Amino acid sequence: MQKPASHRRKNQLNDEWILVSPHRNNRPWHGATEQANEQALPVHEGECPLCPRNDRVNGASNPDYQDTYVFTNDFGALTEYRVNDDHEHPLFESQEATGMAKVICFSPKHNKTLAQLPVSEIVPVVQTWKKEYSALSAEFSCVHIFENKGEIMGCSQPHPHGQIWAHQHYSTEIEKENKKQQAYFSEHGRPLLKDYLRQELKDKIRIVYENSDWIVLVPYWAKWPFETLILPKFDIADFTSLEQTQMQTLAESLSVLTIKYDNIFKCSFPYSMGWHNAPADLEDKSHWVLHAHFFPPLLRSASVKKHMVGYEMMAESQRDLTPEQAATILRDASTVHYKQES
Amino acid sequence: MQKPASHRRKNQLNDEWILVSPHRNNRPWHGATEQANEQALPVHEGECPLCPRNDRVNGASNPDYQDTYVFTNDFGALTEYRVNDDHEHPLFESQEATGMAKVICFSPKHNKTLAQLPVSEIVPVVQTWKKEYSALSAEFSCVHIFENKGEIMGCSQPHPHGQIWAHQHYSTEIEKENKKQQAYFSEHGRPLLKDYLRQELKDKIRIVYENSDWIVLVPYWAKWPFETLILPKFDIADFTSLEQTQMQTLAESLSVLTIKYDNIFKCSFPYSMGWHNAPADLEDKSHWVLHAHFFPPLLRSASVKKHMVGYEMMAESQRDLTPEQAATILRDASTVHYKQES
Ligand SMILES: O=P(O)(O)O[C@H]1O[C@H](CO)[C@@H](O)[C@H](O)[C@H]1O
Ligand SMILES: O=P(O)(O)O[C@H]1O[C@H](CO)[C@@H](O)[C@H](O)[C@H]1O
Repeated sequence: MQKPASHRRKNQLNDEWILVSPHRNNRPWHGATEQANEQALPVHEGECPLCPRNDRVNGASNPDYQDTYVFTNDFGALTEYRVNDDHEHPLFESQEATGMAKVICFSPKHNKTLAQLPVSEIVPVVQTWKKEYSALSAEFSCVHIFENKGEIMGCSQPHPHGQIWAHQHYSTEIEKENKKQQAYFSEHGRPLLKDYLRQELKDKIRIVYENSDWIVLVPYWAKWPFETLILPKFDIADFTSLEQTQMQTLAESLSVLTIKYDNIFKCSFPYSMGWHNAPADLEDKSHWVLHAHFFPPLLRSASVKKHMVGYEMMAESQRDLTPEQAATILRDASTVHYKQES
Repeated sequence: MQKPASHRRKNQLNDEWILVSPHRNNRPWHGATEQANEQALPVHEGECPLCPRNDRVNGASNPDYQDTYVFTNDFGALTEYRVNDDHEHPLFESQEATGMAKVICFSPKHNKTLAQLPVSEIVPVVQTWKKEYSALSAEFSCVHIFENKGEIMGCSQPHPHGQIWAHQHYSTEIEKENKKQQAYFSEHGRPLLKDYLRQELKDKIRIVYENSDWIVLVPYWAKWPFETLILPKFDIADFTSLEQTQMQTLAESLSVLTIKYDNIFKCSFPYSMGWHNAPADLEDKSHWVLHAHFFPPLLRSASVKKHMVGYEMMAESQRDLTPEQAATILRDASTVHYKQES
């Protein structure tokens, strides 16, 4: 077998390289550790602004909701009004950026995560994504649906929830992914992610899970230790055309993936995840494949994460274990949640 | 006065946009807080692999060094040997990446940071950067000199130190900055960062500090709350031509900046910083201006940092206070370290 050596891999969606250092996985760690956040939470918490029937900061109160509940973020990053920050020098370039932000409560249960909800209770989350996406994409071309899970991912509320930030302009990542997918389609006449998926199905070594509609895999160019990509097996560019059976199989995929994540280090596995839909104002979306990214930070245990710092900020992302090693660990992880096993 | 509204600003060095949300600075925070790491450390620590006279993991022992000390990283991310990870499909793109990594101890004193060293003891750090850069750039075209400071920046050793990662290929960021600076130079016949600096000197509102040779400013496109850029007032593309007086004034700039950082929240202010030198193999470096980036994560207190998570990972960086507000806070911060005041 070849001695593991450093090499680079290229992210085909955004043109960024990743430095892979498989030989480095066993360096000692004396640095920061995170608190494994395993205190028991109540099913309803009086102070939580996301729990049913509670009051929010702006005075509104939440209904007695049964599955999901969506409201406008009281502290959204996008304002509805415009600013003119014009500078006469071309190196000082600014743009208006108006839009809106929403919060999606995944469940009335304060103390559950996607990994701990039955598939039947994840289906309404997927349905809500579709519904919100369909409404907002009529108004905004770029609708980001995402979830920050866990305190180390900057999540300020333990109650299971995700967010939507919607705006007219294309964000930096959507702009990059759109250009790359458009260029590939012009050259080959087939969507980039479809060709990519076909090859992954041949290679098999990076596949984590699949069902009739969806594939979960560790991308060849993963930068986070246990990063994954969810890809559809059918043709779809955005949430608007998602069918009921596909929502069911997607809920199954999300359940399996989040359970496997929790099982790797026997903890509530933190991550940021998000959906990349085709920009809504595109006339032709045939180059785009709807997909989700999961970016989880943990590297070696519930308390030791990968830090994307000095070199990564100044140069490029760097990873220790290979994507193939990560996929093997995820494939081997049980589909029964460790808290249910006992 | 205009109501603060969200807008975007463009980073001219890497073409990425940043979402600015000045209205959002006072949202409540119930999320993760970091431990303010203020325990008193000894001047020499028996277990520290960076202290003078101590043993390292590989069995070598450190000399009784007096100012700086450089050694090869025992757990470098770059190997000297190559790997061939060839995949026949063009969407699976990899590259060899060989190189080396070094550690630079800034001082024999285990319990000091740049902010706490007198300028006379920072000068040897700058001299060491120049010396190492000059030697390594003869062999590698891309030499990254950087420092991760503080546990939350993944720094695994409190002993004051920085790192060097050197390799033949251009890293993603260097590639981008090189392209942007080259394009600007072809069009205007002047370096991008020189024109940028001239305008900043007119605007004044983002300048933090200047002396006869150097300027410290919060860039117009800063993504981290208190991000800064160090720019030379004289023509220089890389460390090799740095003169003795310029090293002295640079040490002064570093001292002032790191003291101001510590004073904002009265804590040892974490950051990642790094130098961007012109790629060493370029024949013509006239478009490139040597510069340093400081990326500090703290946002609102010693324990509340900005999390670059969901939206930032899936879309683009987002900041709350404006670069101009951050520059005002830094300008107003004292140049006497808060621990010395009392
Ligand atoms: O080399 P160190 O200090 O052990 O490690 C730190 O800096 C490296 C370079 O930025 C990162 O790759 C690591 O994730 C971080 O923990
Ligand atoms: O909106 P939240 O959950 O309060 O905030 C969190 O997610 C946002 C979107 O990724 C980030 O900008 C914040 O830094 C993070 O703390």
